[in-house]
Amino acid sequence: MFNSFGNIVRLTTFGESHGKCIGGVIDGFPSGIPVDYEFIAQELKRRRPGQSEITTQRDESDDVEFLSGIFEGKSTGCPIAFVVWNKNPKSEEYENIKNVYRPSHADYTYQLKYGIRDYRGGGRASARETVARTVAGALAKLALKQLGVNITAFTSQVGAVKVDHDYHKYNFDEIEKNVMRCPDPSKAEEMIEYVKSVKKEGDSIGGTVTCVIKHCPIGLGEPVFHKLHAALGNAMLSINAAKAFEYGDGFDGVEQTGSQQNDLFCNNNGLITTKTNHSGGIQGGISNGQDIFFRVIFKPTATIAKEQRTVNVNGEEVAVKVHGRHDPCILPRAVPVVEAMAALVILDFYLLDKTRQL
Amino acid sequence: MFNSFGNIVRLTTFGESHGKCIGGVIDGFPSGIPVDYEFIAQELKRRRPGQSEITTQRDESDDVEFLSGIFEGKSTGCPIAFVVWNKNPKSEEYENIKNVYRPSHADYTYQLKYGIRDYRGGGRASARETVARTVAGALAKLALKQLGVNITAFTSQVGAVKVDHDYHKYNFDEIEKNVMRCPDPSKAEEMIEYVKSVKKEGDSIGGTVTCVIKHCPIGLGEPVFHKLHAALGNAMLSINAAKAFEYGDGFDGVEQTGSQQNDLFCNNNGLITTKTNHSGGIQGGISNGQDIFFRVIFKPTATIAKEQRTVNVNGEEVAVKVHGRHDPCILPRAVPVVEAMAALVILDFYLLDKTRQL
Amino acid sequence: MFNSFGNIVRLTTFGESHGKCIGGVIDGFPSGIPVDYEFIAQELKRRRPGQSEITTQRDESDDVEFLSGIFEGKSTGCPIAFVVWNKNPKSEEYENIKNVYRPSHADYTYQLKYGIRDYRGGGRASARETVARTVAGALAKLALKQLGVNITAFTSQVGAVKVDHDYHKYNFDEIEKNVMRCPDPSKAEEMIEYVKSVKKEGDSIGGTVTCVIKHCPIGLGEPVFHKLHAALGNAMLSINAAKAFEYGDGFDGVEQTGSQQNDLFCNNNGLITTKTNHSGGIQGGISNGQDIFFRVIFKPTATIAKEQRTVNVNGEEVAVKVHGRHDPCILPRAVPVVEAMAALVILDFYLLDKTRQL
Amino acid sequence: MFNSFGNIVRLTTFGESHGKCIGGVIDGFPSGIPVDYEFIAQELKRRRPGQSEITTQRDESDDVEFLSGIFEGKSTGCPIAFVVWNKNPKSEEYENIKNVYRPSHADYTYQLKYGIRDYRGGGRASARETVARTVAGALAKLALKQLGVNITAFTSQVGAVKVDHDYHKYNFDEIEKNVMRCPDPSKAEEMIEYVKSVKKEGDSIGGTVTCVIKHCPIGLGEPVFHKLHAALGNAMLSINAAKAFEYGDGFDGVEQTGSQQNDLFCNNNGLITTKTNHSGGIQGGISNGQDIFFRVIFKPTATIAKEQRTVNVNGEEVAVKVHGRHDPCILPRAVPVVEAMAALVILDFYLLDKTRQL
Repeated sequence: MFNSFGNIVRLTTFGESHGKCIGGVIDGFPSGIPVDYEFIAQELKRRRPGQSEITTQRDESDDVEFLSGIFEGKSTGCPIAFVVWNKNPKSEEYENIKNVYRPSHADYTYQLKYGIRDYRGGGRASARETVARTVAGALAKLALKQLGVNITAFTSQVGAVKVDHDYHKYNFDEIEKNVMRCPDPSKAEEMIEYVKSVKKEGDSIGGTVTCVIKHCPIGLGEPVFHKLHAALGNAMLSINAAKAFEYGDGFDGVEQTGSQQNDLFCNNNGLITTKTNHSGGIQGGISNGQDIFFRVIFKPTATIAKEQRTVNVNGEEVAVKVHGRHDPCILPRAVPVVEAMAALVILDFYLLDKTRQL
Repeated sequence: MFNSFGNIVRLTTFGESHGKCIGGVIDGFPSGIPVDYEFIAQELKRRRPGQSEITTQRDESDDVEFLSGIFEGKSTGCPIAFVVWNKNPKSEEYENIKNVYRPSHADYTYQLKYGIRDYRGGGRASARETVARTVAGALAKLALKQLGVNITAFTSQVGAVKVDHDYHKYNFDEIEKNVMRCPDPSKAEEMIEYVKSVKKEGDSIGGTVTCVIKHCPIGLGEPVFHKLHAALGNAMLSINAAKAFEYGDGFDGVEQTGSQQNDLFCNNNGLITTKTNHSGGIQGGISNGQDIFFRVIFKPTATIAKEQRTVNVNGEEVAVKVHGRHDPCILPRAVPVVEAMAALVILDFYLLDKTRQL
Repeated sequence: MFNSFGNIVRLTTFGESHGKCIGGVIDGFPSGIPVDYEFIAQELKRRRPGQSEITTQRDESDDVEFLSGIFEGKSTGCPIAFVVWNKNPKSEEYENIKNVYRPSHADYTYQLKYGIRDYRGGGRASARETVARTVAGALAKLALKQLGVNITAFTSQVGAVKVDHDYHKYNFDEIEKNVMRCPDPSKAEEMIEYVKSVKKEGDSIGGTVTCVIKHCPIGLGEPVFHKLHAALGNAMLSINAAKAFEYGDGFDGVEQTGSQQNDLFCNNNGLITTKTNHSGGIQGGISNGQDIFFRVIFKPTATIAKEQRTVNVNGEEVAVKVHGRHDPCILPRAVPVVEAMAALVILDFYLLDKTRQL
Repeated sequence: MFNSFGNIVRLTTFGESHGKCIGGVIDGFPSGIPVDYEFIAQELKRRRPGQSEITTQRDESDDVEFLSGIFEGKSTGCPIAFVVWNKNPKSEEYENIKNVYRPSHADYTYQLKYGIRDYRGGGRASARETVARTVAGALAKLALKQLGVNITAFTSQVGAVKVDHDYHKYNFDEIEKNVMRCPDPSKAEEMIEYVKSVKKEGDSIGGTVTCVIKHCPIGLGEPVFHKLHAALGNAMLSINAAKAFEYGDGFDGVEQTGSQQNDLFCNNNGLITTKTNHSGGIQGGISNGQDIFFRVIFKPTATIAKEQRTVNVNGEEVAVKVHGRHDPCILPRAVPVVEAMAALVILDFYLLDKTRQL
């Protein structure tokens, strides 16, 4: 519990935004998986700040150092520990907010829960923690690669600008070609322009990330409390700034009837499959072999350049204006984190499912 | 894992729709809590079928029998086991679907996952399992009552008919006065009429349930993976037919900026509080003392009276028409289950939080 | 935690000695295992009281009723719940000890821990709880049977009467032929005579149970905290009255040197094996394919017929003389419980090991 | 599971004997505990090799570097990660045993379990992993100090040389005054002489460590599977080379009757207590306020200087002679590890017990 995630493949993360490092331990990772360091570095690069003018300028190269669990290029089945050292922590910038509860941050709740908090850059509550998830997710992807599973996320909405819900319309090769990580190039342009205007105002904006998992083995998901979509929901809602999760037709299905939503089975040349996929690849909480797809809704980042009213630790009302380097729109950087968490869930449930028959 | 839920207060449920019973064991329940059997019976009555013409006619009185963990009217701290015997299982009705994969049910995925399944009434995948959650949730509510925590859920949307998002507009005393469990009496009427029309077509319809938790202690929620809303999301998405979860402003917040969404802290006569509650009572994954509120989206029930095309276990295409007693609209019966799961999460995280300081 | 045991195959037990029943739920049991009810009844019979004059006369036929998780004679992969109804609870016999803390019983510690306790027959602390372990263990044995694993326990010492440590000297077929469950018929006689003399004094006596696991697959055990012998030790020490656990050469090895204790590997017609088995089949916490063997030490049962001095709940010194039906020597009834717990551990670690490679 | 230990306070360790480091993450550690670095260094010094001629000469200063979870000298309630860098890994020394299965080591079982292993110095299976337990145990001791709990372990037997079972005879201040960590100075001398003679033969010898926990709060321990002694047994048996565990009268109690072993309650000036403590401070699996004491039996270390016959990975019989720096007697270095594991268990169960009442 607390800072661990997963049943079989269990990630424990540690570290604070402006402490020595962010790191993690992946216990229960299967042995014999080749570790592609190049790929892991690439995944970290996708998450790292300073990539474009629509995300934060904080420049972290975010190199990962593995401490254990890998021998001669392969996982040994022993815990894989790793750290990403914090190279560029300008903690002094946070001295001025040491005693202030920033609006919609975790300063206040951490203080009351623990009676103590590392206020520098949000400490443990900072989204910088997701760098550890990205490393672990990259390792999970390397294991899933051997099973043929493919996971792709992209920015599907920013403010009011959105792409079509039917992801089949898009070429996923377009995603990494624009800084918004949106598969529709012209929508990407609109989104970027909009974020720029929001940034100019010293403000921030949210949006949605869509994720599609292809070739997921049939049978993953544990009834009744650990349905596959419940585990995915848990994973996604644990990402900083996530406010909602839907899978399959989700919210849009509310106005449709059962006969419109039901996915009829058919026989496709000897293969049982469904004609439609309103279920989002999960039925009764268990993967059915169709594409799994879901959407995560992110609120605008709480840190903005505008001056805001708040209180300090003594309850005195004060004004706060944050000078740090922050994201006007977190969406493009959330994309790899969504993929990472999805990969951890799928690998974990794959291994769990291996125990369901002798 | 598998059929258990919770960290400290841990519910394990068992039983199949048409087996001997549905039951559960609550381990880790605190000792010394008075057990109000009347209240538990009342909660079961709210969930039970046959309450009105908009839900299923299957008549189950659903009396719970406690087997352990209670002595002289109080919980002993030992596991509380209970069963609700299945009195009215018309299993023969299911003989005709024994070899058929019903559309959007779990028949197919269970078969492939386990290589065997109890096909009678959906077996373990049936929503009848939620009767056990209701009993456990009622016990959790009795414990939370001692802490002053109050949990209320209601039907907030059916098809396109919806109440206002701002729940402050409504008098919660209205909720149990109509069969829809909707706090807006006139909307309730509209919803009921709509469900009747859908039922007449042999079809089903979904909607949303809103839940409000008042007087939740500050400090509940475990960063980083077990944020309070992530745990609530997991809990809600584990309920049959749930397709989405949002908390606070959720989906609606996507088009707003950070300066619009941030909840400014203020000093309210010596008490630190927030002027608004876009955060839904949870900041950084931890309860902040404001109302916690969230919404769960339910798809229309998969079982409909209309004939549908599907395949049987041999892959042959067949028509299926289900004659069982089913719900044209599950929403009113989902309301107590949403409350039950919320109560289990809050009690669990309250006890967990007790361990965060010596 | 609390009343659950195991990682993948997870047994949760419930019930009190003089409550309605003792029961359990086995979650995570693999699907497709044929359930041999005859065998389970036989295992219960081995544990049940009233078998001979050296164990308690309380007559419980102990029939198990399965509530879920079995369909058409096979496990479905869903939780298997079961109860053994308490048919013969003479609770009135315990009225006189309602307010007394019996020496070396759990009355006092339960009262202080929970602030409430079911005093009838020891409530939850009674060894009657092991009836649930026996049922679960019988199921685990049925699964292990498919893997060829064989588990045999026997009484190896009672008071000062003991058999040789080298179990190879004995024919295991002798074990069930005497009421002591001792493979050496003449030692069995000695033990029985000794227990009778102890019983005549109104006293009780302890001893040891030895357990041998044959044909355990290689590779079971999880370093570093969940070494196979550590898990077995936890399991055995959780049985009522257990005071010590040793495996392999155990205590006796203390006076020997490394060169005497080391098991040299050799090549036995193409098969790597060890010349000796001081390690008890476990090296580095992992099974190596040799026989696993260990010993559990049980103290004399705390309930004796002699009058003893103690205090009541008000701290007043009183005399207590227990009239219930109790065991002068628990050993023969502990034998099937030791086997049951061993079976649960081996099955659990077998399934866990399946996840160590993709 | 796998490499984690504990329920609330959960230690995950990582690292290999000759990898970059040995480290750990303690999740669930309570907030606000002052971190005494001097004390932690002292504990590590007790465990470290090179302290005397009766333990290994490998010289590791074993400085711990904390990576997270501590702010301004106190624990923050966030995970505390730490590493002890491996400064002196002479891996080349192990090249010659790369393909050899050393007798009674984990080489063979790791290879078969994982299909891959870090053979350098035993890799993950090396007792060097206990350095992480020592750090975590030191932190646990700092928390327990605030509760007044005191934990002391000592060497009670080496080969056939042993101290009296009644620890009250000894002055614990003597323990750290001799390299054997034995409270009886003259027995210590005997033990040291014996180890020297064994060392001269190129051999090794085992023994026992006794541990006494004073002022443990009443009520710790979770029936039925997680009795306090079962958890302690699990913890101790997970230490490298441990072969047996007993608590209270343990093995010696086997020949005594119930009337001899039962601890009679009495009223000691208004305080309920027991006249004797055969139970070792634990009744019904729950601490009763008396001293908790137990013994751990360690086999001789498997690594010896004598040449031994074994097989290599190809199954060919070969001779192996290990030239590394090893311990002729591990006991003195096991003492702080036993204390560390005891501290982790007691702190964990203390926090767990806080959840048993609202």
